Amino acid sequence: MVSLKLSSFTHLFSSPSTTAISHRSSIILRRRHQPFTATFSAKTTAAETKDRVDNSKNRVPDRVITPRSQDFNAWYLDIIANAELADYGPVRGTMVIRPYGYAIWEAIQDYLNVKFKETGHSNMYFPQFIPYSFIEKEASHVEGFSPELAVVTIGGGKELEEKLVVRPTSETIVNHMFTQWIHSYRDLPLLINQWANVTRWEMRTKPFVRTLEFLWQEGHTAHATPEEAENEAKQMIDIYTRFAFEQAAIPVITGRKSKVETFAGACKTYTIEAMMGDKKALQAGTSHNLGQNFSRAFETQFTDENGQREYIWQTSWAVSTRFVGGIIMVHGDDAGLMLPPKIAPIQVVIVPIWKKDDEKMEVLNAALSVKEALQSSGVKVKLDDSDQRTPGWKFNFWEMKGVPLRIEIGPRDVSSGSVVISRRDIPGKQGKVFGISMEPSILEAYVKDKLDEIQSSLLERAIAFRDSNIVDVSSYEDLKSAISQGKWARGPWSASDEDELKVKEETGATIRCFPFEQPQGIKRCLMTGDPAEEVAIFAKSY
Amino acid sequence: MVSLKLSSFTHLFSSPSTTAISHRSSIILRRRHQPFTATFSAKTTAAETKDRVDNSKNRVPDRVITPRSQDFNAWYLDIIANAELADYGPVRGTMVIRPYGYAIWEAIQDYLNVKFKETGHSNMYFPQFIPYSFIEKEASHVEGFSPELAVVTIGGGKELEEKLVVRPTSETIVNHMFTQWIHSYRDLPLLINQWANVTRWEMRTKPFVRTLEFLWQEGHTAHATPEEAENEAKQMIDIYTRFAFEQAAIPVITGRKSKVETFAGACKTYTIEAMMGDKKALQAGTSHNLGQNFSRAFETQFTDENGQREYIWQTSWAVSTRFVGGIIMVHGDDAGLMLPPKIAPIQVVIVPIWKKDDEKMEVLNAALSVKEALQSSGVKVKLDDSDQRTPGWKFNFWEMKGVPLRIEIGPRDVSSGSVVISRRDIPGKQGKVFGISMEPSILEAYVKDKLDEIQSSLLERAIAFRDSNIVDVSSYEDLKSAISQGKWARGPWSASDEDELKVKEETGATIRCFPFEQPQGIKRCLMTGDPAEEVAIFAKSY
Repeated sequence: MVSLKLSSFTHLFSSPSTTAISHRSSIILRRRHQPFTATFSAKTTAAETKDRVDNSKNRVPDRVITPRSQDFNAWYLDIIANAELADYGPVRGTMVIRPYGYAIWEAIQDYLNVKFKETGHSNMYFPQFIPYSFIEKEASHVEGFSPELAVVTIGGGKELEEKLVVRPTSETIVNHMFTQWIHSYRDLPLLINQWANVTRWEMRTKPFVRTLEFLWQEGHTAHATPEEAENEAKQMIDIYTRFAFEQAAIPVITGRKSKVETFAGACKTYTIEAMMGDKKALQAGTSHNLGQNFSRAFETQFTDENGQREYIWQTSWAVSTRFVGGIIMVHGDDAGLMLPPKIAPIQVVIVPIWKKDDEKMEVLNAALSVKEALQSSGVKVKLDDSDQRTPGWKFNFWEMKGVPLRIEIGPRDVSSGSVVISRRDIPGKQGKVFGISMEPSILEAYVKDKLDEIQSSLLERAIAFRDSNIVDVSSYEDLKSAISQGKWARGPWSASDEDELKVKEETGATIRCFPFEQPQGIKRCLMTGDPAEEVAIFAKSY
Repeated sequence: MVSLKLSSFTHLFSSPSTTAISHRSSIILRRRHQPFTATFSAKTTAAETKDRVDNSKNRVPDRVITPRSQDFNAWYLDIIANAELADYGPVRGTMVIRPYGYAIWEAIQDYLNVKFKETGHSNMYFPQFIPYSFIEKEASHVEGFSPELAVVTIGGGKELEEKLVVRPTSETIVNHMFTQWIHSYRDLPLLINQWANVTRWEMRTKPFVRTLEFLWQEGHTAHATPEEAENEAKQMIDIYTRFAFEQAAIPVITGRKSKVETFAGACKTYTIEAMMGDKKALQAGTSHNLGQNFSRAFETQFTDENGQREYIWQTSWAVSTRFVGGIIMVHGDDAGLMLPPKIAPIQVVIVPIWKKDDEKMEVLNAALSVKEALQSSGVKVKLDDSDQRTPGWKFNFWEMKGVPLRIEIGPRDVSSGSVVISRRDIPGKQGKVFGISMEPSILEAYVKDKLDEIQSSLLERAIAFRDSNIVDVSSYEDLKSAISQGKWARGPWSASDEDELKVKEETGATIRCFPFEQPQGIKRCLMTGDPAEEVAIFAKSY
């Protein structure tokens, strides 16, 4: 695999003598066409492998990642560049998703695809070119999307009679087709999904989080009753929530968007909101109850059991490559990416260690059988047997790539029939255990157990971080103070859209959602003092 | 799954009284916005189930498929409409791939994706918008593609400074990125693939076979030597060939394209050519040795082991949704689609049969346990337990959808603990076996065995058809005669490009390939009588 070829990363790592240029290297992703500057010198790290236990010695010289606390955005871009997750495309705001980043997306796809099918949805594909007139049919939809459209005006060398929109989302073309396919209540529910690229002409872009073109899945469903549509919208946000918690170890807060923040064309938008490492919120997935807005605009009707013609009730829901950005920003640290085992393309990396040539064969043989044993028990394992790099370099490299577990095997380990295992989530000696038996059944059980532990531990850590950064507020002053500290504010809200926009203007924070989980008791709106039925969460967001 | 909801198909089937309109119904796919005409009347087929053995009685009333022999193109479009494989999109030449058609594409993806990864390729994603200037860099590439481009000229409401091409293929943007990623021989080989949509502004379109937008995979690789690139290009056409034979049961002829037919920008193009049911050729997959054409245009260089700067050697290779069209046109018959078991979304359909209500429960219970037994042994099985349709209707319906095996279970079968099994590829009584035990291990073994038999039988049949329609020719007169009979002509060829174009003009046939498998012996060019090293295959094509 390309992503795993050490040789292709050389230009991203500077030798010790070039640590001074680490800042320059760290902006690889922020500038384009950065010339190739320094290849890593193997010589300089030879000494570093002397004491393999004290891994920290190896870390400094290779690091070109801006500390997270120093500049979160620079740190984020450094990780994306150094872990080779993505690169800028030649057109402003576009992104090339590199193999390691794409493998994370594939893990997201694999999980969701199964869940979608289990809940009765079929994949299909709609064309990406949409007649301009379609976009204009649903009033709030056109208002929301028209500033962001990419438009094809020339085809086959000729000016087109009707301009074509490159899909920013597919509700309009879906409804156009639904109108042809749906005739009676027997055709309902109609439950479909597509994996596709979409284009939105964003002015301020950021890899994964907001790009001119991105990949996503978009589900579209049609129902005979509003209750069914509502249940569907909630079912899908529930699937997203479980994915976030159980696979990505991201403790999202699930809730309903305010009217102001509702999707252009929807009646209700449900959302999962994730707290990033800089405490900004990321909308990581949405599920919309579209009501009859699109069916009325496109005349999508069905004959009900009584022979009456009725408009269908619809939903749509999506998760995109943005989620990969969320995973980076929730779990990563100064050493690099940190991937939850359940979505890690590589769960375990094996680093063989030898000094003399006569040790090499036995160490590599042992490493290979450990690899095969783990692989056959379903663990995603990579053996890094390259001899172009020192073990110390490899330790840092795979830490930076966020691999959850590292197995080290040296000559003494071979003699004793055991291995050394280090956890990515616990740095240094604390995360390292010696003398784990190589015996396949013992090792497999140990590794799977540790992967589960890491998965849980990442989630717990993220929950603790989230909860320590949400402040309950009961007045606008409280809210402003919480937001100015960079935190999320949670407080009762029943004020107007105008008040909501005022908060945004004055604090930069928006209502992320009215969470499904609501506190008990009487509530009074933090802004007006009027009775409020729900608390809302306010935060600055991506 | 949407595709399997009988109720959604009602409008495609006319009741017996409307057989006269079958021609009108058969053009559903050829016209757009066809109004909803007739719902199927359950009453009218009640009598048809009397004798379940004589299935032919049930077939006539529902059929709206033009006979293949009468009008191959109409037959093809009827199958696509009736089996709900695809529908026209609102923009001329675009296609909506419906769930059942998309599931066939997913089967293609699943197989190829594994093979690509096994041979060291990683998936990734390149942006679809390509600066217009990129396309112009490789001379023959721009010549080949510029007439077919869709061009974005407006983004975010503004006229763009540089027009953007919606990718027709990605060689140019891939090379732009390779130039940034590849520095030394250690970065090679670089082996990647992407699953993506591509756009070519085709004037004459046909669902699956040639559409304005289509889905494909495109592999792109970079190598240090021309030998490695050549081996890669051949390895990938070999994977395609095996896929065609072993999965799709399509006996393609693999070979090299003539210079005239080589991909715009390639040195050599390898191809798999499939013979459709109307004996026209379909180019079903290609693999290109690009040499240094793109690396010279994009200055993609690497430092070799001796410190010299060299241009990289490249390949690209692709299979698209066109392959689905090939599967339809190779195997389908007058009853509809016929799917090879290995790529069938549903391999076995179970049709329960009952007359009285008191029989229903025991029949459905038996059907359910048969379903579960087969499912747990890895067979893709569908139980059609809808009570809106008669068994006879279901027989025809699932035959039309090309499901390889049908299991019938009625009250007498339940008593005797056995089932009736019918093969899609052998019509009527010949394909039907009574009294197969329901005992899971026996039934599973029988079903798997039959699926294998069908798979082999479809391939053998296609081989026989192909071989009986290729004529060995030794003169231009022979060639013209073979082509005028609609056959493929195979004969020695060493004539000029001009002669090749003359053949095309005069006969409508092109050189499909110089097959890898060449006859022994001395050859003389069919056109010039000069010595020839190879035979070529000439045919009309899609």
